[in-house]
Amino acid sequence: MANFDVIRELAQEDGGKIVLLVMDGLGGLPLQPGGPTELEAARTPVMDRLAREGITGLSVPIGAGIAPGSGPAHLALFGYDPLVYQIGRGVLEALGIGFDLQPNDVAGRGNFCTVDANGVIVDRRAGRIPTSLCAQLVERLRTIRLPGVEVFVEPVKDYRFVLVLRGDKLSPQVSETDPLVLGKPPLPARPEAPEAARTAELVNQFIEAARPLLADQPAANMITIRGWSKDPNLPKFADVYKLKAAAVAVYPMYKGVSKLVGMTVLPVSGESPADEFNTVRAHWEEYDFFFVHIKPTDSRGEDGDFEAKVRVIETVDEALPMLLDLKPDVLIITGDHSTPALLRSHSWHPVPTLLWAPGRARSDAAQAFGETECSRGALGLFPATDLMPLALGHALRLVRYGA
Amino acid sequence: MANFDVIRELAQEDGGKIVLLVMDGLGGLPLQPGGPTELEAARTPVMDRLAREGITGLSVPIGAGIAPGSGPAHLALFGYDPLVYQIGRGVLEALGIGFDLQPNDVAGRGNFCTVDANGVIVDRRAGRIPTSLCAQLVERLRTIRLPGVEVFVEPVKDYRFVLVLRGDKLSPQVSETDPLVLGKPPLPARPEAPEAARTAELVNQFIEAARPLLADQPAANMITIRGWSKDPNLPKFADVYKLKAAAVAVYPMYKGVSKLVGMTVLPVSGESPADEFNTVRAHWEEYDFFFVHIKPTDSRGEDGDFEAKVRVIETVDEALPMLLDLKPDVLIITGDHSTPALLRSHSWHPVPTLLWAPGRARSDAAQAFGETECSRGALGLFPATDLMPLALGHALRLVRYGA
Repeated sequence: MANFDVIRELAQEDGGKIVLLVMDGLGGLPLQPGGPTELEAARTPVMDRLAREGITGLSVPIGAGIAPGSGPAHLALFGYDPLVYQIGRGVLEALGIGFDLQPNDVAGRGNFCTVDANGVIVDRRAGRIPTSLCAQLVERLRTIRLPGVEVFVEPVKDYRFVLVLRGDKLSPQVSETDPLVLGKPPLPARPEAPEAARTAELVNQFIEAARPLLADQPAANMITIRGWSKDPNLPKFADVYKLKAAAVAVYPMYKGVSKLVGMTVLPVSGESPADEFNTVRAHWEEYDFFFVHIKPTDSRGEDGDFEAKVRVIETVDEALPMLLDLKPDVLIITGDHSTPALLRSHSWHPVPTLLWAPGRARSDAAQAFGETECSRGALGLFPATDLMPLALGHALRLVRYGA
Repeated sequence: MANFDVIRELAQEDGGKIVLLVMDGLGGLPLQPGGPTELEAARTPVMDRLAREGITGLSVPIGAGIAPGSGPAHLALFGYDPLVYQIGRGVLEALGIGFDLQPNDVAGRGNFCTVDANGVIVDRRAGRIPTSLCAQLVERLRTIRLPGVEVFVEPVKDYRFVLVLRGDKLSPQVSETDPLVLGKPPLPARPEAPEAARTAELVNQFIEAARPLLADQPAANMITIRGWSKDPNLPKFADVYKLKAAAVAVYPMYKGVSKLVGMTVLPVSGESPADEFNTVRAHWEEYDFFFVHIKPTDSRGEDGDFEAKVRVIETVDEALPMLLDLKPDVLIITGDHSTPALLRSHSWHPVPTLLWAPGRARSDAAQAFGETECSRGALGLFPATDLMPLALGHALRLVRYGA
């Protein structure tokens, strides 16, 4: 695991340019025993060459057997121990919709739910109302005013919304109001620390104000709020790694997590890998480090569409020469976790990873970029948090440790 | 390493069935350089197929270069860091003879020894008296009564016995009476914490009462007692892993360790692998997790009998279809440590391990089940404590970490 105290001491401002290319949910499983995974089935002549020329391995995002969410998986790729550095659910949801979270904001994840005449919850997800209705009801909630704070309510998806309170001395140490079981009324928000008393009171006022605004709704007639959190104030790339770092991503959540670690989020015209690589090219001289995030590998894995995931990987390979033309000193290609189409979800399987750094990276036995070839790689099975120190080392950005 | 706080939070009660098949002392060494190990010499078509279809690696029970005892080696397999969770020698001896240890019992490991006319020890093991004489002398010690506690004395083997005190407010914080060198008298038991004063006094009373009872013995005319300990109150499988877990073992010590982690110990008719697998079959519907322990691999290794250890492994392979017929979702085959016949003892060598989970485990480069093939496996060289989280992951028993 990266030891920030050591890395911070060794990192210097000079050195090579690094590209971290993350295909979300890259790792897969064969559909048939002995068959290829998505990555192995994909025609990827460029990545195969990079795997032959560079060093490969399988990265473990969190720990053996543990399937990660996208937040902790990316923190690990960025070198932050995901068991130490955590991002709360409210903040993650806010980042996910591109909300411009300020350092002192507290964010909670809201659910519309259904209560009966006695006020007990009969559906925790309000029958999974459509996002369009969610947006309409959020408009009603936006009329609520609370003393001394600004209130932001934003729709997310289906029955989910985000509530952000902005003001002085707010604390996220507020309990959840979702009882997590049916047949009970929503719980009052309670302060979990003395300094959270006012915030809890404000949350309760919001919920009480919401009740009459939703009373005419057949399904979404009440709300619960949980996951109160604020910007976790993570160490920043410029401080820890001495890197001017930029993020190139299409989906809001990945832009948000990048901002939390101090990256500049660059604008992308379009959504294809080539569009993202164009952004890298346009800003190549301005930054030392580029995080490039490819979302559809994960989406097609969650769809259970093996062939579509294969095609996404192939589009990335086809566009890769655009990145190589920029002559990065270090190029890492990996995923944040596995999303095998076979399982239709994030999984615990280690993630195929290659590190290419001409003249500086060793090569190994891997002859192509795939799970089985990477299992023969010289990086072995390694914690994802090792990748940033490896990138910095190969970019000649770390001075010697000790005399 | 398994992080119990994280695993406890992620583990859920639903999911697949897991079988952990442990061949004690499985790992070996070639008799000649370049030759096969015991496992490689054994004809194991079933395990070879499972290794081809599943994922393999070499597990490290405690740490590099360290040969484990059976207690810590099994704790590691069960996911308990053996450097954090320890079982005292007295408790291990009591478990080893099948003593039904209660939570508040304190257990010590006793040795018969020889003292001369001046009371100094001239043989710490009483000439390694036979177990039959040990049993006779234990009968004499059983006549000793102590105030306010029940006293249990049980023969173990040769010069070794177990002393268990049962009563309120007993403490295992009592010093050893064996000076560990010749030419000194046995030491008095001393309390190592204030609350152990009474227990130490009771131990000294027992030793003083034993002296006249043994005075007629030419060799075993005195005793020493060490390793005072009690049930370490380990986290239980049902709590940490949410597993209904059963143990199938023939030897008492393995039943005992299984009980300490909350497994139900199932009865076995007979002692062969097939007998043990029959027990699994008979209780298949009742449990989520089966630990199956095969002892003779270790015993034949300690005998230095390479061929006999090979034959034990082959019997396990022949019976394996009985387990496969039950269609476990996850089958792990491993050892708790290595016991190479060449060394006639437990060793530090990593242990060949395969994890088979149809449709959920990746395969890797290993083409058979053996030390060299497993060294090419995608699990790499991994801490034994990773096995339980891996098993839970492959059984779809862990929810995602973070959003």
